[in-house]
Amino acid sequence: MSDVARLAGVSIKTVSRVVNDEPAVHPDTAERVVAAIEQLGFRRNLGARNLRRGSTTGTIGLVVEDVGNPFYSELNRAVERIATSFGRHVLTGSSGENSDRERELSLEFCARRVDGLLIVPAGLQHGYLVPEMRAGTPVVFLDRPAGDIVADTVLVDNLGGTIEAVGHLVRHGHRRIAFLGDSPDIFTAAERLRGFREGCVRNGISYDESLVAMQTPTPETVGHAVRKLVGGPNPATAVIAGNNRVAVHLLRTLAHAEHRPALVSFDDFELADLLDPPVTVIAHDVSALGHAAAELLFARIQGDQSAPRKVVLPVHLVARGSGEAAL
Amino acid sequence: MSDVARLAGVSIKTVSRVVNDEPAVHPDTAERVVAAIEQLGFRRNLGARNLRRGSTTGTIGLVVEDVGNPFYSELNRAVERIATSFGRHVLTGSSGENSDRERELSLEFCARRVDGLLIVPAGLQHGYLVPEMRAGTPVVFLDRPAGDIVADTVLVDNLGGTIEAVGHLVRHGHRRIAFLGDSPDIFTAAERLRGFREGCVRNGISYDESLVAMQTPTPETVGHAVRKLVGGPNPATAVIAGNNRVAVHLLRTLAHAEHRPALVSFDDFELADLLDPPVTVIAHDVSALGHAAAELLFARIQGDQSAPRKVVLPVHLVARGSGEAAL
Repeated sequence: MSDVARLAGVSIKTVSRVVNDEPAVHPDTAERVVAAIEQLGFRRNLGARNLRRGSTTGTIGLVVEDVGNPFYSELNRAVERIATSFGRHVLTGSSGENSDRERELSLEFCARRVDGLLIVPAGLQHGYLVPEMRAGTPVVFLDRPAGDIVADTVLVDNLGGTIEAVGHLVRHGHRRIAFLGDSPDIFTAAERLRGFREGCVRNGISYDESLVAMQTPTPETVGHAVRKLVGGPNPATAVIAGNNRVAVHLLRTLAHAEHRPALVSFDDFELADLLDPPVTVIAHDVSALGHAAAELLFARIQGDQSAPRKVVLPVHLVARGSGEAAL
Repeated sequence: MSDVARLAGVSIKTVSRVVNDEPAVHPDTAERVVAAIEQLGFRRNLGARNLRRGSTTGTIGLVVEDVGNPFYSELNRAVERIATSFGRHVLTGSSGENSDRERELSLEFCARRVDGLLIVPAGLQHGYLVPEMRAGTPVVFLDRPAGDIVADTVLVDNLGGTIEAVGHLVRHGHRRIAFLGDSPDIFTAAERLRGFREGCVRNGISYDESLVAMQTPTPETVGHAVRKLVGGPNPATAVIAGNNRVAVHLLRTLAHAEHRPALVSFDDFELADLLDPPVTVIAHDVSALGHAAAELLFARIQGDQSAPRKVVLPVHLVARGSGEAAL
């Protein structure tokens, strides 16, 4: 009962009320408690299921946005390393940021009876996984949380990292800072935008919506946004790139520009240190993200039935030059 | 019989001699003919096997050196795209350039009854795959050929590309050109070294073994080699990097050097165009390599029983600056 209370974020008394069908509980709260009971219920069955199953299929599934993106290939390598140490192989699939494709891949991996599933979710609705989880397939979400179910999740500190980026630029004299993020439908993009806003507030500069552009990063969209933000009559003097794709397109756009704004990029990327100027980044350890998620998954596969965990990994600013130029 | 002759690289008459156990055939040749007959034999059974099997397992296997290396993640993405269009998922595994691990991964994927196998081989012995191929699992080798069996193979023009790199540097005045390659046990590394030697001959410069370093690229090994080759009493004025890993470590070593040699890198890589100077590369289309290999594999899965094919994809030099500086 205390597990249920913890998971649902309510008191034990409230759980007891819901279980005994007593009044005076808000319907939303009751629903959360019922969901928590259900989820803990099937977790408990997990160990038994594995025993019943007898043998494992020897595979785990990994659903990411794009196996070709260096960020995800580094994640893939970390997951593979852990999987190998547990004698498992990795089935990979790219959702392409399409929630239907994420669902299709995840369910197909389950149909192939993977021993567990790691998902970088594209969508916000994950009820479709509840029957699979109930049937004994553990699922860990990484980089982004599940939309509408309570589940194991490993994230990085998107909020704290972007707040730090703003503070860093302000300390170097910038007050007009632009934020170029990925599509706001993506959790990490939305969180980083939230961090940007919070960073403005904490550092006493005004949050100016006209300095924000959120969209799927392509050479065209980023090029257009950069030219608008740093080329106008009252231009931004610094830019925060919301992820490594934005940063790469932005760097290419500005390669031959006369005036280049200061830059901090969320995500480190290969050769960032060798560019001119070297790119200051909010670095997070992608390998650590993959390791932590895979280790949590294998703990579940081996019968760990504790309450779902949410792990948030730290990030840190690496000052290399692009964010420290005098204004 | 003409298939067998083509595959074994002998005349039909020779095949006939071997089949009829006539004398006057060199034992090595006879062995090659027998191997070709066996291989074509089980290829013919392949279509039947698939029919008998009824349903597919819905997966193909992809064994590469390292799923985290950007070169292989781009390959993975291309393979995934084709696999998806055929309704298949991709099991991936990293051999880490270890032939035992390659064998272990490949056989485990076969035991999981993948519908087909794509291998970037780490080793030179692939007889272990013959029973699997005979049992109906098509195998396509990519980027490097199989060691001791005749099989479908998709390569890039390593030899021609490196010859072109040497010619390019010679045209820009260089006569002391160093070659930094990966371990010579790796086919692509050995082929590129062969191209380097051939390029020296064709361009009338002496091939100097003291300007060659072949080893597994790490920051340390590459750093050491670079310092020796360009820092000695009679230094190289230009360097050819044998692959993208060598190039990245080399660039980092030379980042703050006073004198930087001209550079041409085999393999294009992200941000090469944004470095100072931008890096001249021998570019090959990694996606095309993955596409071609995956398409060949699915042709086999769907019953194509023609003789094994060897496809060599073209490469081309992209001049960006690092290879064109005046001497």
